Amino acid sequence: MATADVVTMDKIVSLSKRRGFIFPSSEIYGGIGSSYDYGHYGVLLKNNVKAEWWRSLLRERDDVVALDSAIIQHPRTWEASGHIAGFTDPLVDCRTCKRRYRADKLEDGQCGEKPSKPPGEGPNCDLTEARNFNLMFQTTVGPVQDEGSTVFLRPETAQGIFLNFKHYLQFARKKPPFGIAQVGKSFRNEITPGNFVFRMREFEQMEMEFFVPPAEADKWYDFWKQARFDWYVKLGIRPDHLRLRPHDADELSHYSSATSDVEYLYPIGWQELEGIANRGDFDLRQHAEYSRQNLEYVDTASGERYLPYVIEPAAGADRATLAFLCDAYDEDEIEGETRTVLRLHPALAPVKAAVLPLVKKDGQPEVAREIVAALRERLQVEYDEGGAIGRRYRRQDEIGTPWSITVDHQSLDDRTVTVRDRDSLQQDRVAIDALADELERRLRAPWRSPKGSYGP
Amino acid sequence: MATADVVTMDKIVSLSKRRGFIFPSSEIYGGIGSSYDYGHYGVLLKNNVKAEWWRSLLRERDDVVALDSAIIQHPRTWEASGHIAGFTDPLVDCRTCKRRYRADKLEDGQCGEKPSKPPGEGPNCDLTEARNFNLMFQTTVGPVQDEGSTVFLRPETAQGIFLNFKHYLQFARKKPPFGIAQVGKSFRNEITPGNFVFRMREFEQMEMEFFVPPAEADKWYDFWKQARFDWYVKLGIRPDHLRLRPHDADELSHYSSATSDVEYLYPIGWQELEGIANRGDFDLRQHAEYSRQNLEYVDTASGERYLPYVIEPAAGADRATLAFLCDAYDEDEIEGETRTVLRLHPALAPVKAAVLPLVKKDGQPEVAREIVAALRERLQVEYDEGGAIGRRYRRQDEIGTPWSITVDHQSLDDRTVTVRDRDSLQQDRVAIDALADELERRLRAPWRSPKGSYGP
Repeated sequence: MATADVVTMDKIVSLSKRRGFIFPSSEIYGGIGSSYDYGHYGVLLKNNVKAEWWRSLLRERDDVVALDSAIIQHPRTWEASGHIAGFTDPLVDCRTCKRRYRADKLEDGQCGEKPSKPPGEGPNCDLTEARNFNLMFQTTVGPVQDEGSTVFLRPETAQGIFLNFKHYLQFARKKPPFGIAQVGKSFRNEITPGNFVFRMREFEQMEMEFFVPPAEADKWYDFWKQARFDWYVKLGIRPDHLRLRPHDADELSHYSSATSDVEYLYPIGWQELEGIANRGDFDLRQHAEYSRQNLEYVDTASGERYLPYVIEPAAGADRATLAFLCDAYDEDEIEGETRTVLRLHPALAPVKAAVLPLVKKDGQPEVAREIVAALRERLQVEYDEGGAIGRRYRRQDEIGTPWSITVDHQSLDDRTVTVRDRDSLQQDRVAIDALADELERRLRAPWRSPKGSYGP
Repeated sequence: MATADVVTMDKIVSLSKRRGFIFPSSEIYGGIGSSYDYGHYGVLLKNNVKAEWWRSLLRERDDVVALDSAIIQHPRTWEASGHIAGFTDPLVDCRTCKRRYRADKLEDGQCGEKPSKPPGEGPNCDLTEARNFNLMFQTTVGPVQDEGSTVFLRPETAQGIFLNFKHYLQFARKKPPFGIAQVGKSFRNEITPGNFVFRMREFEQMEMEFFVPPAEADKWYDFWKQARFDWYVKLGIRPDHLRLRPHDADELSHYSSATSDVEYLYPIGWQELEGIANRGDFDLRQHAEYSRQNLEYVDTASGERYLPYVIEPAAGADRATLAFLCDAYDEDEIEGETRTVLRLHPALAPVKAAVLPLVKKDGQPEVAREIVAALRERLQVEYDEGGAIGRRYRRQDEIGTPWSITVDHQSLDDRTVTVRDRDSLQQDRVAIDALADELERRLRAPWRSPKGSYGP
């Protein structure tokens, strides 16, 4: 059972801006709707999220390989995939205010001239009939001026994988079951983006297509549902803030025989974090037909040939980053003051260790600098000598730095420092020479959020 | 003096496709001009290139912070930057074949109907007057149908940095000199892309804007020229394949008072790998004017206020990856057979170690699997049990794996394995328990290409 938590979306947005994790894009020009830039700590955090995703697939397994396909692909791709015909929302335009609304969600809209009313109920509203509006961004490429030069920004990274499936059978010497994984930007011209980085028009995906013999599809679907759920838990999301929700029959996409969402309890409620779908052979069959190429896998030993089925775990890098931020956000009280602290898994923390001289004299800054130089070979570290030590600890707590290393008077005598733990607040004395190994040991140790699980 | 080398662009293209580093995009639909996808080893290699770039700036320095800004920014950005007015090529259209050509490079073009002749000299050529064609991709965003909804795919990542400069003064507590670094895709609707991944319409940049007090601009310009040159050398490019070429006065961009290119001796000749420019205060001044915001830095201690000057090292991730591939490519003879080997710096190598049981029996595969499980916590490793050992070594040589670890009969007795070095071909016996530390030690050791320098 989930319990009340201190986190709200407002607090996340405010911390993100204050500490430069994430902030509105193009803000000096008034912004551009629902578009966000990642600042210093946001880049480090999101890079860590992506690196852990890669690690779980490429490093820890033998059956997954990587791809980075272009954002602009051949336009036939989107005919074959069904996006040109079917990736649409029904929209109406208002002839008065020139705004566009989702015809199926008029009640959620705001009249362009009278925002207190939904479109169609404003005094001057003049709505057109609904028509289908494709969500793909369209542009024109290259030197030839004909219809062949109209191209689309990909609305998902998945299709680039299907286009290259055959290559991987050849040069990667792969046979099913195996997966092809990709991280990259996708674009959807959403009419109603919102909720911070939860739904943006430009967003980053982490998708894998796992190709299997048809008879093994159910087994692998179950496997990946659980594996992806477990990935979030291992990286510190509390299990009671996660659930697997199978789609009802009427929710399923045309290509899928089964889909489950990993949902996270965001401050806005339970929402999709990742979808795991059994896409069958829909995509390979479509591309085989449109390209007139045989995309079957042929087992040279048995002579068996088949179009593999595909299990797809499709995650959002921005949604995952947001979930990790929300789940890590905490407030507690230290010495009578409220402390904001991000209890991030150390592997995700933007900065692993801060090195702080207790005072800005007596040789302490020099020793601290020496420690920074030794540690940075292996870890992202930060040096901070400005202000009271308590205030410096708070700054690091707020960005989720798991360990703060303080150089004090004793350090100059015996070459030891204190290592303060962000969560337990315990301070251990560690020899400077043993510091790097000790921090790497702590980094690799299993970790569980001290916020505790409120599980059933 | 550069000497003849075995590498040609054809060999690089061929190896890249054969081993799945890089191959033409959307190939099952006949491709899309000058667009490429990165396969498994290509992703690993390019990710390592980007990681080393980040490492050199974020980890090893205290004065650089990260940004990841949106590809689609407010359109005023490109008015202020000068791209809408000036980022153009003069083009002519042929009314007969509907092709478009660069008016200033007609002699390099091919007539659409008679490719042996340049445009204008084919029998049916009917060329229009030249007009300026903007190289930015254009698309339409969001629900409002007016001119404000036309947006552009960024042609460079740099402007996203200038837009956010003020944020960094605040939340990153930074003051000049400091840099903001960014990695990401940019898009240019080039009329004449080509030379593999050297010039693509969709490409990835690694750019930093380093903000400095105006009086220090020359000093920092010199510093970054050398630092960026040295980065390539440190990662194994032979110094005689690199040069710094200052732009002549008539080559300089309107915003720059000085620019130098780091050029690499590609198989197609000396070409720009990276540009280092002194942009002065051009960009901040423009954005201050267009946004009506004060972008000056104010020193709270001295009261001094100024628009910082900017030193920009702007590298291409694709060009750098291509340069590392070209410089690493080698052929030598082993036991009477020609071997293709990528002599990549170990830090860049897609796979750090291959683990190979000498025979597929006698418990050797099990020991090899155990080694893989222990190593993959720290390194990208690959297991291969298929085929003769010599052939497996060649496969690893071709993708640049620095160390091949062979499990043999002796391994079962004394828990040691052989570690074969890709370049020296030397085989050392190492205890299995010491393997991870030994490989990490080798990874961190300074490295120099065994192809040697042919320097002046």
